Amino acid sequence: MTNKDARTPASVQDAQSEEAGKSIGWHKAYVEGTRPDLRVPVRQVHLTNGQSLTLYDTSGPYTDPLVDTDVRRGLPPLRENWIIGRGDTEEYAGRPIRPEDDGIKHTSPRGGLRNLDAVFPGRPRQPRRGRDGQAVTQLAYARRGEITPEMEYVAIRENVSPEVVRDEIAAGRAVLPANVNHPEIEPMIIGKRFLVKVNANIGNSAVTSSIEEEVEKMTWATRWGADTVMDLSTGRNIHTTREWVLRNSPVPIGTVPLYQALEKVDGRAEELTWDIYKDTVIEQAEQGVDYMTVHAGVRLAYVPLTANRKTGIVSRGGSIMAAWCLAHHKESFLYENFEELCEILAAYDVTYSLGDGLRPGSIADANDEAQFAELRTLGELNRIAKRFNVQTMIEGPGHVPMHKIKENIDLQQEICDEAPFYTLGPLTTDVAPAYDHITSGIGAAMIAWWGTAMLCYVTPKEHLGLPNRDDVKTGVITYKIAAHAADLAKGHPGAQEWDDALSDARFEFRWEDQFNLALDPDTAREFHDETLPAEPAKTAHFCSMCGPKFCSMKISQDIRREHGGTQAEIEDGMAQKSKEFAASGNRVYLPIAD
Amino acid sequence: MTNKDARTPASVQDAQSEEAGKSIGWHKAYVEGTRPDLRVPVRQVHLTNGQSLTLYDTSGPYTDPLVDTDVRRGLPPLRENWIIGRGDTEEYAGRPIRPEDDGIKHTSPRGGLRNLDAVFPGRPRQPRRGRDGQAVTQLAYARRGEITPEMEYVAIRENVSPEVVRDEIAAGRAVLPANVNHPEIEPMIIGKRFLVKVNANIGNSAVTSSIEEEVEKMTWATRWGADTVMDLSTGRNIHTTREWVLRNSPVPIGTVPLYQALEKVDGRAEELTWDIYKDTVIEQAEQGVDYMTVHAGVRLAYVPLTANRKTGIVSRGGSIMAAWCLAHHKESFLYENFEELCEILAAYDVTYSLGDGLRPGSIADANDEAQFAELRTLGELNRIAKRFNVQTMIEGPGHVPMHKIKENIDLQQEICDEAPFYTLGPLTTDVAPAYDHITSGIGAAMIAWWGTAMLCYVTPKEHLGLPNRDDVKTGVITYKIAAHAADLAKGHPGAQEWDDALSDARFEFRWEDQFNLALDPDTAREFHDETLPAEPAKTAHFCSMCGPKFCSMKISQDIRREHGGTQAEIEDGMAQKSKEFAASGNRVYLPIAD
Repeated sequence: MTNKDARTPASVQDAQSEEAGKSIGWHKAYVEGTRPDLRVPVRQVHLTNGQSLTLYDTSGPYTDPLVDTDVRRGLPPLRENWIIGRGDTEEYAGRPIRPEDDGIKHTSPRGGLRNLDAVFPGRPRQPRRGRDGQAVTQLAYARRGEITPEMEYVAIRENVSPEVVRDEIAAGRAVLPANVNHPEIEPMIIGKRFLVKVNANIGNSAVTSSIEEEVEKMTWATRWGADTVMDLSTGRNIHTTREWVLRNSPVPIGTVPLYQALEKVDGRAEELTWDIYKDTVIEQAEQGVDYMTVHAGVRLAYVPLTANRKTGIVSRGGSIMAAWCLAHHKESFLYENFEELCEILAAYDVTYSLGDGLRPGSIADANDEAQFAELRTLGELNRIAKRFNVQTMIEGPGHVPMHKIKENIDLQQEICDEAPFYTLGPLTTDVAPAYDHITSGIGAAMIAWWGTAMLCYVTPKEHLGLPNRDDVKTGVITYKIAAHAADLAKGHPGAQEWDDALSDARFEFRWEDQFNLALDPDTAREFHDETLPAEPAKTAHFCSMCGPKFCSMKISQDIRREHGGTQAEIEDGMAQKSKEFAASGNRVYLPIAD
Repeated sequence: MTNKDARTPASVQDAQSEEAGKSIGWHKAYVEGTRPDLRVPVRQVHLTNGQSLTLYDTSGPYTDPLVDTDVRRGLPPLRENWIIGRGDTEEYAGRPIRPEDDGIKHTSPRGGLRNLDAVFPGRPRQPRRGRDGQAVTQLAYARRGEITPEMEYVAIRENVSPEVVRDEIAAGRAVLPANVNHPEIEPMIIGKRFLVKVNANIGNSAVTSSIEEEVEKMTWATRWGADTVMDLSTGRNIHTTREWVLRNSPVPIGTVPLYQALEKVDGRAEELTWDIYKDTVIEQAEQGVDYMTVHAGVRLAYVPLTANRKTGIVSRGGSIMAAWCLAHHKESFLYENFEELCEILAAYDVTYSLGDGLRPGSIADANDEAQFAELRTLGELNRIAKRFNVQTMIEGPGHVPMHKIKENIDLQQEICDEAPFYTLGPLTTDVAPAYDHITSGIGAAMIAWWGTAMLCYVTPKEHLGLPNRDDVKTGVITYKIAAHAADLAKGHPGAQEWDDALSDARFEFRWEDQFNLALDPDTAREFHDETLPAEPAKTAHFCSMCGPKFCSMKISQDIRREHGGTQAEIEDGMAQKSKEFAASGNRVYLPIAD
């Protein structure tokens, strides 16, 4: 997960921030690309032995003290010049914002927005789209052989050549989610050839949380390593909350437009229509949503396949579409109108996340007919999307026991022409509510090793309640572990340098380095100090587990010191001992009989 | 993990305890065997739909309100009559307890035990051993074709036939750790043919914790599901602490005798001798330790192989033996005297846990020459132990990236004639101190699926400090998840019934059942109540994540209600809708163009 280029001092611009991220033990630097406005942020961890390690950084400008951020103003539009420079998009009036976009009925006595002061106060902006509906997607550019600044940006982040990035996107094996209306993001890529990514879900719900809370959850999640964030808000002020999140997010934002569409028909699935859905997609595309989950694979004929399931349909989007199909006894309007939807997404470079509405919600339902019938349809839709130059990834389960996980990724890769797989876990058992970040972290690590490109995190509150700030952090850290474990198993270049740096620090008792290199420096330091609070303990050549006498690392070091560092040297040392031994008269040690 | 027999009411004796384990949502019952004194405890979870589920129970008499437990008296000697009844053991004076057994120097001004009131006050007992050193091990009995009460007991626990238990033990593919001096334990079995087991480590250390704390940690760990407990105490009162733990433990206790032996030479490894070690083994065998970690595979010639490692030797026992070998430039006294050690263990039925003193302590060192050289020696020692009828399991790593895990179990099974593998994790990355229960839980689940019989837990404090009560619980729960996920993947009969019962409860919104079936009912209930505290919410047909409108489970249920339960019924329902549709004049829905 390190970036070799970034370790060349010349190419690193240090943000000189002793403050930045101090609490999490690293500090911000940038790697410049071929143009001055292409500066890739990295985490520079300075070690006490004088070395430094550079890590991938998702925290955005918030951890750069030289950038003055203000959530009321939003982040600087990093990509604006790149987008305008391409000259293939145009600004336009855009769709008027209506009260119902924020869940306010026409009949609302108050009328208008419930919470006017919540309207995003940043600079006014007009939406942008491809001129006369032409494809302005990274996929279209890649297929034309172009290397966009976005592609160069991720190439530096991933420590690969821009050509590799372009070719993986062109082949549909990777996506670079970047809506032309979301210039604030720091480009990132999702594909099995690259570092495994992690998504964190946020969003207010029945139990409402404030707009500020959602923005704060987003910045909190990215600070700990979330590569994308999905806003799954379903309550009031859904449009306005999304605006605040988008304008302040350094990572791509995903949504499930169906949720907002359902709000617009007051939660009555059967009242959903294609035009209400389409209008919602355009509304969100104009705001800058980078990828959208579309449950177009839930077809009328598949619904009966779920009848004998233990847990039926557990995907919200899937159950909504199933209810609609049955209520009208018609084929899904998403499936029927998929090509028109492709035209819309292509005009904004919104990436498809083809939802797995029929994913298994229990161990008993894993890999069943309903699930794989939908997967085959997703493969068909993936090919249609590619005809329209729309970037596409495929969502996966769910609840799957370990021995059935590999079949999921193998089938998906075959059926979907190696399009990026984006899985939720999978959870490897149903029996541990309150620990589903762990039941799913196990499955996530395995399926990512086998080729899943992005993992949707699961928090300890899954199945039980809404994640709070701590749950979000626990979910992200757990999934960063799964993702990095997979990067190691895949032999991703540079992945092991991080482990090696931390293990060196551990063996040499460089406690501060061990903390600062940790995924969660704060908690590592806190746990250490619980047992050995004294400052000297941080330089002590033993740890609190064994104490000085028993410390294996210390004994191991003593051995090395006493007998030389290399194997040859130790053997020499032993030969020497051997001589002394002989000199001492070969006194043989006799075990004393009891 | 359920027990079919146990579900036959006739065979279940209900402890009638509304109180017992109420806080963790189940209650105690017993399954009787072929003799009245053979009663296997189970967890009976009573569901609100009238059904009940019976789960494996490790919590001992403490959760049975009809048993009056007192840590100062110890647990009833459940197996005493079985042991005496075999007539092949004898009581004898035993080794006198010396001050140094508790870490007190002869020269100690105070002299005697530092903390006399800590001496275990329970009934005086004389140690027992096999008559004229004959093998009194479950392995010897199994090889003779005998089915002991211990074997019948575990057969009921595992829901298999006693013959299967006997044959697996006889073949050396499973061990039943049960020292003749530890009659208090509820017999359990460790082998790949059976449920995956979990060990929890306790033990005071440099930072001393009291004897009471250690006993409490042991009962706490077994309450949450620990199948065995290792007492790794290294400080003062080491003998007395172990006595208290043994007399109160319902599960087998393991130790590393080398730790206490080192205390006896004041921590100077080079001063260790075979007789001090042997004396310590006898001391512990007479107390009733059920299995002992012996690092006899760390041979002089292997030490140089660790010279170029990133983290050298990270096993305490391994580093102590390596230091001794180098200091004397002699072969390990454990390796040299292994046959005599076998004779001692055979006389008490102490099970070997052949330690992996050269296990990798970092991703970089995984599967290296040092590790596998030792493994080959463990295979050789395993065959020697079997000649002496000593039950044997083999310890495994450690830090191993996912793609190198399978090689570990495959090699161990081949080299060690399928002897039970007992692994620590493995940890799949080094970069997450404070979350190593998770980095290792991932590896543990995978290696258990592939055949590891017992998993040694890792707590969040690994590498950082000493686990407290919460860490012990988190470690045990995480490892129960890994073990059960493996039971599912191995298709262990009955394993999935637990998941199915919980998923049924989830789909039917039986919240109380969902909590009571959870691995950790307390935390599941607490998390739920954080968002929806009201009592009615526990019967609400939706959860706090989506609220009533969006609940996919609810919509899914509505679909099923409206269209009948089975696939055929749903198709009929749809045909019906189809007719109404035609009757309505086939009004075709037209998407409104934008």
